[in-house]
Parts: sequence; C-alpha cells; structure tokens
Amino acid sequence: MPLSSPKSAAETIFQALDSLEIIDPHTHIQPLQAASRHLNDLLGYHYFTELAHSAGVPKMEIEGEHLSADDRVRRLVNGLGPLENTIQLQWLHEIAQDLFGFDEPTLTPANCDKLLELTSQTMAAPDWADQVLKRCRVSAVMLTNDFDDPLEGFDTKRYLPCLRTDDLVFHLHRSTVRARLERCTKQSISSISGLQAAIEELFKFFVARGARACAISLPTDFQPQPISTTTAKLAWEKVVKADGDGVDAAALKTIGQFVFWTLAERCQQYKLPFDLMIGVYRKVYPQGVYQGQDLYDSRVSLYDYRALFNSFPDVYFPVSVLASVTNQELVSYAWIFPNVLPFGHWWYSNTPSIIRRDLSHRLEAVPGTKLLGYYSDAYKLEFILPKFRMYKRVLAKALAEDFVADRGWSEQKAIDLGTKVLKTNSERTF
Amino acid sequence: MPLSSPKSAAETIFQALDSLEIIDPHTHIQPLQAASRHLNDLLGYHYFTELAHSAGVPKMEIEGEHLSADDRVRRLVNGLGPLENTIQLQWLHEIAQDLFGFDEPTLTPANCDKLLELTSQTMAAPDWADQVLKRCRVSAVMLTNDFDDPLEGFDTKRYLPCLRTDDLVFHLHRSTVRARLERCTKQSISSISGLQAAIEELFKFFVARGARACAISLPTDFQPQPISTTTAKLAWEKVVKADGDGVDAAALKTIGQFVFWTLAERCQQYKLPFDLMIGVYRKVYPQGVYQGQDLYDSRVSLYDYRALFNSFPDVYFPVSVLASVTNQELVSYAWIFPNVLPFGHWWYSNTPSIIRRDLSHRLEAVPGTKLLGYYSDAYKLEFILPKFRMYKRVLAKALAEDFVADRGWSEQKAIDLGTKVLKTNSERTF
Amino acid sequence: MPLSSPKSAAETIFQALDSLEIIDPHTHIQPLQAASRHLNDLLGYHYFTELAHSAGVPKMEIEGEHLSADDRVRRLVNGLGPLENTIQLQWLHEIAQDLFGFDEPTLTPANCDKLLELTSQTMAAPDWADQVLKRCRVSAVMLTNDFDDPLEGFDTKRYLPCLRTDDLVFHLHRSTVRARLERCTKQSISSISGLQAAIEELFKFFVARGARACAISLPTDFQPQPISTTTAKLAWEKVVKADGDGVDAAALKTIGQFVFWTLAERCQQYKLPFDLMIGVYRKVYPQGVYQGQDLYDSRVSLYDYRALFNSFPDVYFPVSVLASVTNQELVSYAWIFPNVLPFGHWWYSNTPSIIRRDLSHRLEAVPGTKLLGYYSDAYKLEFILPKFRMYKRVLAKALAEDFVADRGWSEQKAIDLGTKVLKTNSERTF
Repeated sequence: MPLSSPKSAAETIFQALDSLEIIDPHTHIQPLQAASRHLNDLLGYHYFTELAHSAGVPKMEIEGEHLSADDRVRRLVNGLGPLENTIQLQWLHEIAQDLFGFDEPTLTPANCDKLLELTSQTMAAPDWADQVLKRCRVSAVMLTNDFDDPLEGFDTKRYLPCLRTDDLVFHLHRSTVRARLERCTKQSISSISGLQAAIEELFKFFVARGARACAISLPTDFQPQPISTTTAKLAWEKVVKADGDGVDAAALKTIGQFVFWTLAERCQQYKLPFDLMIGVYRKVYPQGVYQGQDLYDSRVSLYDYRALFNSFPDVYFPVSVLASVTNQELVSYAWIFPNVLPFGHWWYSNTPSIIRRDLSHRLEAVPGTKLLGYYSDAYKLEFILPKFRMYKRVLAKALAEDFVADRGWSEQKAIDLGTKVLKTNSERTF
Repeated sequence: MPLSSPKSAAETIFQALDSLEIIDPHTHIQPLQAASRHLNDLLGYHYFTELAHSAGVPKMEIEGEHLSADDRVRRLVNGLGPLENTIQLQWLHEIAQDLFGFDEPTLTPANCDKLLELTSQTMAAPDWADQVLKRCRVSAVMLTNDFDDPLEGFDTKRYLPCLRTDDLVFHLHRSTVRARLERCTKQSISSISGLQAAIEELFKFFVARGARACAISLPTDFQPQPISTTTAKLAWEKVVKADGDGVDAAALKTIGQFVFWTLAERCQQYKLPFDLMIGVYRKVYPQGVYQGQDLYDSRVSLYDYRALFNSFPDVYFPVSVLASVTNQELVSYAWIFPNVLPFGHWWYSNTPSIIRRDLSHRLEAVPGTKLLGYYSDAYKLEFILPKFRMYKRVLAKALAEDFVADRGWSEQKAIDLGTKVLKTNSERTF
Repeated sequence: MPLSSPKSAAETIFQALDSLEIIDPHTHIQPLQAASRHLNDLLGYHYFTELAHSAGVPKMEIEGEHLSADDRVRRLVNGLGPLENTIQLQWLHEIAQDLFGFDEPTLTPANCDKLLELTSQTMAAPDWADQVLKRCRVSAVMLTNDFDDPLEGFDTKRYLPCLRTDDLVFHLHRSTVRARLERCTKQSISSISGLQAAIEELFKFFVARGARACAISLPTDFQPQPISTTTAKLAWEKVVKADGDGVDAAALKTIGQFVFWTLAERCQQYKLPFDLMIGVYRKVYPQGVYQGQDLYDSRVSLYDYRALFNSFPDVYFPVSVLASVTNQELVSYAWIFPNVLPFGHWWYSNTPSIIRRDLSHRLEAVPGTKLLGYYSDAYKLEFILPKFRMYKRVLAKALAEDFVADRGWSEQKAIDLGTKVLKTNSERTF
C-alpha cells in the first residue's frame, strides 16, 4: 500500500485539526460588541486601512469624518486592488465567502454593495456573535482588558479576562492614567507603597472575575530588572508630579522597571501567566492611519530578559516575538528555561512563510507540551476564522512534511502533536 | 482534469515571465562600453576573482601586471574548479552557452581557448551590445553615474542616467572630490551655501538629461537626520580644509548627514526616487582583490531611517538591504510607509535560497504594486541574462508554490502578479 | 527515460554519502572512556536532561545524589514523553534501535528496563568503542583537550588532539587555572613574557603529540584585537594577583584579547587551524541542570573579527556560529576571506530546519572546497551515528532539491560535492 503524499497527509491532518474545539488565547475582542455590526467593522481593521494607505489611498479618504459607514466601505474597497496578493486580504475574502455566502472571488467596487447587503442581513441576527464562535469552533476567547475595565455584562467563561498592563509600565507619567488607577482601585498612589497597593488591588479584582493572564507589549529597548524600593521612591517622586512628555526620562524608565517587576511578583502570587509581547515601537509613523503607526527595530534579544526568567521560576511566560529573527532565541530559551513558552505568531510575523519557518524550528526543538501554537489577536470575532485556518494549514503542512514525510511518523501521531500545539497546551496553561 | 503540479505551473509561469520586455532598474553599465569586448571583461567580474581568490588563487595571479587579457583568463580559469557549486559560476556558464554557443558543460583549462575564440568572434560584432539587450529582452537599463559624469555620447532613452551620490555624502573630505564638484558645477563650495548650490546644479543637470533616480549605498552605522544650517556651517569649515583621512570625524559625519538630507530635499523637488542601498562597509578586507573587499555588519535596522521616511512622504525610497535578516523589516516598513518600496535582492543576498525566502515574505505581505522585483547590478550587459533568469526562476517557483498550489490561484493570475513585480512596477516608479 | 524525483534522488545521494568513511572534526570524546558504559551515559547527555527539565522534571529528580545509575535512567525516562517531537529524542531512539537492537518505537517507563538490559550486555564488550566507530564509519575523531591534558594512553591517530583554549583566554583570573598552567608547562607566568613562554610550551607539547587544531568558544561581546606588550604588562599585573571574580574587569578583558591574539600567532607559527565557535554566553540560567545553563544573545557580527582575519592570512579559521541569523555573514565572510571556513552546525543551530536553510546558502555561495560540513560535538561515540545521519539526510535533500532538481546536476555530481563537504575538506584542513 503506497504511503500517502505529503500533500494528502497535510489535507488529512488539516481536517482533523480543523474539527477541534479550541480556545483563542489572545484577542482584542470587546465582549459587549464581540462580532461586527457593519461591514465597516471588518474593513476598518488596521490591516486593510494601513495596507490600502501604504498602496496609495490618502489618509483623508480612509479616516475623513462625515462619511457614512457605507461610504467608508466603498472608498476603501476602491483601494483594495493592489492588496490582492496579500494574505491579509485573503482573510477578508474568506470571511466574505464562508461567513456571509459572498460568491465573488474578489471584493471590488462593482460588487461591494452586494457584500454590504449580505453582511447587513446576517449581522443583524441577535445571536451573530455566538454563530461566529460556533463556526470557528472556538469555545472561549481571551480578552485584552484595560486595568480599569469593570469586567461586567458578559459571560467570563466565554470571554476570559486578561489584565493588560502597558499603561501601568509605560504611561504613569500621564495624570489621566494615574487618575484612572486611583479611581478604579480607590487607593491613593501618591506614595510608592500606594502604587504597590493599587497594583495588588487590580490583581485581586481581576482574579476574582476569572482573569487567566496578565499581558504586556514591550519595546525593543526594554530591559527588565529589579529596582530597590529606595530607588523607586526617588523616581516616583518625579513621575507622580509629571503630566505627559516633560517627565524625567530616567525616572520614568526606573518606574517602568519597578512596576514591571511588581507585576511579575503578583503573577507569581496569584499564579497567573505573564504574556510578554516583545519588540514593538509605538508611533514610528505618526502620520499613519489609526493603529497603522507602529513598527520595530529587530535588534532585540531575550538575553535582556534573563534576570526575569531566573527570578520567577514559578511564573509561566508565554513569549511572543515581533520579528522572525528572534524566533531562534525564543526556541532556545524555551528549550532551556522551564517557564518560557513560545506563544503564537505575532503581527508582522503572522504570515504563512514566516510562520512556516518559525514553526518548523519550534516543533523540532521545544518539548511539545510547551508550544502555545496560535492566537488570532482579533478585534472582531469574524477574523478568528480565517486567521486560525491560515495557521492550521501551515501547521498541517509542517507536520506532514517534517514529521510524516521526513521522520516517518504516522498521520495520527502528527495529529496528536498538532492537537497539543493548537488546543491542549493553551487550555492547560491559561 | 487534474490540476497541474507546482513544477509544471512554475515552468508555465517562468515561460510567461521570460517573454516580457522589461527594464533593468539598477546597473553599473558603462554606456560607451556596455557589452564585453574580451572574455576577460566577463571573467574579471569581481564575483569570479574574489571567489577564486577565496578558494586559494593568489592575488598576484589574478591582478599581476604585464599579463595579456588571454593569459589573465587562462590563469583565472585554472582557479574556477572549486567554485563549480556556486550560483555565480553558473551565471558564467549560462552566458557562455546561451550567448556564445559554448557547448561544454563546464569551463576548464582544457577548453578555455575554445571559449576565448568563440567570444572573440562574437564580441567583435559592432552591434553586440544591442544583440545582448535583445536576447535579454531588456529595453533600457538604469546607470550608476558619478556626479561629474558628462552624460554624453549615448542614448539616454536606452541608458537611463542615475545620480550616484556616495562621494557627496562620504568623501567631501577629499580635496579631489571637492575639486571635481566645483569643476562640474562651476560653483565655489567654500561655503555651505555654495555646497547647497552645487548640489542643486547637479540635480538640474541630471534631470535635464533624463535622470530617473538618485542613488546611494550606506554603511550599517549611518543614521539620517536633519542638520541645521548653523551646525552644518561649523562642520563644513573643518571639512573643507581637510585632505583625506586626517579630517575631524564628527564634522565629516555631520556633513554627511547634512548632504544626505539635502539630497532627499532635492529628490522631492525634482520628483526623483531616492534608491537606498543599506548596510555595506567598504574595505573590510583591504588585501582582497579589486571590488572584493567589502562586507557588512548585519546588525542594521530601518528604524534608524524613520525620520527620513516621515519627513519626505512624497519621495519614493526604493530600499535594498544587504542581509536577509533585514528583509522582514523591509517588508514591514513597506507595509506601513507608502513611500518605502522593497527593491531587488542585493549582492550578498542575490542567491537563490535567500531570494526565495525573502521574496515569499514580500509577496504575501506588501501591496503587489510596490514590489520592485529585481535589478542585475551588472557591469557588463551579458550578466543581465543569467541574473534575471535566476530571479525569474525563483519568482516563478514562489508564485507556483505559494499562490497556485497553496492559495488556489490560477496560473494567469500568478503571471499577472509576476508581471507587476518584474516589469510594471519598475517602469512606473522610475 | 524519466528523471528521478527529488525524493528518490535524495535517497540515492544519502546512501552514497552514508557509505563514506569520514573523520569527525569536533567532539568532546574522552578517549579513555570514549563509548558509554551504561545507558545513563547516554541519557545523561545534557540535551535530554535539559529538555526534560524544561518540560517540567525537577532538577532534583535529575541530579539528586544517592541515585543508582539505573534509577537515574528510570526517572529521566519518566520525563521524556513531552520531548517526543524533538529531534534530540530521535537521536536517542536511533541509537537504541540501530546500535542496541531495541525494537520499540519509543522509550517509555514500561520498556525502559528492556533497554537497560540490552545496553548493559552490549556495552560490556571490550571493543565496544571500536564497534561503534565502525558502525559510524568514522576513522578518527578530533578531541577537545584541556591545555594540561597529558595526552597519554590513547591512539592519537584515532583520537586526534585539539588544544582547547577557553581557560587561557577567559579564566586566568582564577589562581587554579594559573597554577595548572605553571604546573604543566614548568614555566613561571608571573610576568607577561612568562605567560607567552608558557603558551608556546603548550603548542610545542600539543603539536608533538599530533594536535590538529586549536579551538575556543567565544561570547557575543568578544572583540579580537592586538594588544601591545606594554598594555598587556599593566593588565597582567592586576590579573595575576586576582583569585576569581573580584578581578579588574577591564584588565581581564585586555589579557583575554592579548592571549587570544597570541594563540593566533602560535597557530600561524605551528600551522594549526584555529576553530572559532562564536556567540555563547555561559551560565545564563544558573539554576539549570549540568551543561544546560548556557544561551546567547544573537546580536553578534563577524565584522568584529575583521582585524583577526586580516592579520592572519595564513591561519585557517573554521568558524561555527551559534545562531542561524549569523549564517549569512559566515557565508559572505567565507566568500571573501580565503582563511574563513564555515564549520558545521553548532548546538542551538544543530536541528534539521536550521541546517537545511543554512546549508542551502553555504552550498550556493561558498567555494565547495571550503565547506567543513559537520561535526558531532558528541561526548560519547554513540551519538556520532544519529547526529551525522541527521546531517547526511539534510545534505542529501539539499543536494537533490537545489542541485539535481533545480540546477540540473547529475546525481553523481551532487554526490561528489557532498563528499567534499562531508569528508574531503575536513580531512585536508585538519
């Protein structure tokens, strides 16, 4: 009996993986508006606005005020032609075809109104969000909650809270942020001990409401290290008086390190994983469209995180890296440190050719129980479908080529490994 | 009807792409001696001399004086054996076989005189350069012109001028360079305003003669930033007195940044693209053969260019990076910045396995209208043939595997995308 | 007659390469205990202990005292399940099956005693080491000898001495290291000239006993440069008084550079290759298991080695890089510098997907006579078998796909290239 070809093995594995019910361990879903209500909610995703802008559509065409939602859609569709090769536009086409029954191969100005109508009807269903989750075979999604999110009005078993902490580490020089922190914790933060107490309040609040993780995105030049209370006090005196960019930069950096280390301590105390998303610089292109302004300097190293990984052996650190050049370090650090877990394929690395090469390396050198395969990072539930499907295709191909063809594994054994990577590990970790 | 295999799809796409008439958007062709006149003009290309030297041929054997052109060829051919696996030697074999009818699989000392004779006859044809361009299906090539090139004696519709500016940014501490600038612009440059006026003269001259771009190669540690006229004046006072390496290094660096920024301003004014070739260090191996001395430090980032990309939204920057590690940044910056265009596969990244991986990522994440696929960088027209053919093969394979096989595209749609990348985008941009 | 498929070409090439008798140009074999005497010698390899530890086995379970060798094996086998996907565990399975006739697909707690018995019987054979070498088709292995190794009691034609020099460059602030150096060379090193004389003694001793190379591993931040004797004297006065970490860091760094340069001078004098293994930081995870504590910062560049490569044109530098991101620099520097040779696939880069991509680039751009394909880095002879076989599979695949399929080479020509890379080049260089 002939062995199956890598291509058919990939198809078999894909089908098996695609039938699993999974969780999505990192999204930006707003649980009270989880699914889209208008096609513009889909087309307004920064991947389309920034790529259309990059291909020549003026920012005013995209973000100009006084445009109706329908007109925003029509103007953006005018600019999608140059994006046809991108995987991002394929996400949109798969959504249009598979969730809304759009039967055109490509979205164009000529057929745009047809999709507007289709989506308008379908999205009007009161259970649309639940329908989408069912189609995606996703039982729960992790959120990204501001520290002062009330976490009310939604099912925290389906929409799992996650404490996002960028504001606490990087923005405490803004009086608005400090005021939000005092308001939601009912705690004065004029002293460093007050700040510590406020942070502890946040953890109590989030954990009581079922939070599954603490998370943060970090710039290239961030270096975690412990800061003594004495040093932190002096720095806090400078920061707490500041309002915005005039702050003493060294003091702000010190407070950032102090708060970050405090967060890790609380993660240890409350047994929460601490998701690290490493390597982004914000507003590199300030004239870009909304959410299309951030980029990176790929000269980053996990070596800068060694004190953190050593100091918190009981905290799991699911680590995402922004650039593929850091993937080998991520593999190596996860191979050595028990508490470092490779986590998904983030943003500028979330395209098939990059996932393919990063994934092959993870699969051959990191214990299979430590691989947290993928998250959608979606703002609207609909995007979970094409993004996870893209990942499952690449995962199935990697398993078929690297394990079934090259290493003689059975398809079933490959599916079992894929199941850990896609489903079981995330369920166990979070 | 069975789908075609990726292999046959690649062949179909290759044939379609290979039949297109294109321009070559970056070369070092000397228009008055565009094609080779002796086999030594081909074998003297630095790729062969440096690789033969690297494999053990002493420099004196390669560059010793008092050798006839025939003898130079014979000595170098003696050293080609160890290079047989290199793609560079394959370029030579394809030229020998396809342009000169050489019917041996490999060039060896035993058959070297046969090729000498064949090339001698063929190159003697007065229209040899035109014959080569026709065989390459290239309608025009961009040049690399010194700033004081008279741009005379050739058809500027076929040989398109391009202002190369390395000397202006990096070598104004050499009195010979300053003298050349004063001579060709008839402008005193003893003051900073004189220098600015001279640069403006260059642009007027080049644009009037059909220049299509300004270009420069940049070292790893170059960081573009605006310099005030006051600061530039003080630095220029130091540089303008210098003659060579004794110059104040900080002042020279400041003037380099000032001139670079001035060039970008003139590109904006005259609507010229500004080609940036980022990441080369010159004379890292000073004992190497001619043009075989330059290398690089791959720790470079486009993040250092953010001020430039932000300040000149109306200037197109076709960007080449020397090392593949920077390709993901190039993709990401081109995905966000409208004025950043990935440009070719440069020098140490111009080999099939590197092109393959860099290209797959560009094709899946950058708008297809922004991809400036390839240039030959050739010094003699003959090399356009095998270099572009190497690229077309990789491009066809990427389109067949990533788009036809993995994404279900038709071959025709893949050919249309390849046509943009190979032909249309370059024609429109330059 | 149909062309063979890449898959069958790879198989043909693999069989041809696998039949060659070769040398292993870098190992940590102890010649007096070259093969394993107990299964624990195999399972105690750091790849298994560190990966099992990373997957959750407590350090005490692995390194706790008062455990018998059998019990150590049983406890570690309990923790191997999560490693099943790793290529490292496949090495163990191949050894079990091919050297010891273990007929289970996977080593589990249930069948562990069976393998204990099999290995116990087989390893008891007095000629077991020679049997293993014969099965690996390896005629000789290079060692890694401490500078004060007596080099006695073994066949230096089969076990080739190699002077390892990390202690001399990085650890002379330890009085124990200085004492060892004085003892073995019978030379006072209280003065810098004494230190130089001692180093010369080491070379005389090693060369007289058939040493084939000098070797060292280097951290990311090491920068070779010549140090004047005057500067070295001042630094040595500080270092020679130190005992451990209280040493003046700048003085230690200077002495490290001085000794390193001196080693290169002696390599030139004694015509020894100088193996450079670039980019490791020691004890990044000090709580890790034995030999499972080292990691790296991938921001390293061969540009920092330019003075070395330029200053010693007659010394061959076989260069290993720890991270794949440096592979393109390695290719480029080997393409330009006659004395730089790409050397194997080291440690965190010694997995199939990384080898595959690094190798394709080496094969297409470096003269085939300069590629030192692979070494096992093994501590016990048994590991030579699966590690080299892994490499040969990847090499055969690269030759089949890149040369036979893509470039039209005959299988025989591909085998000839593979033979250079796997065998001939190492034999000639060392």
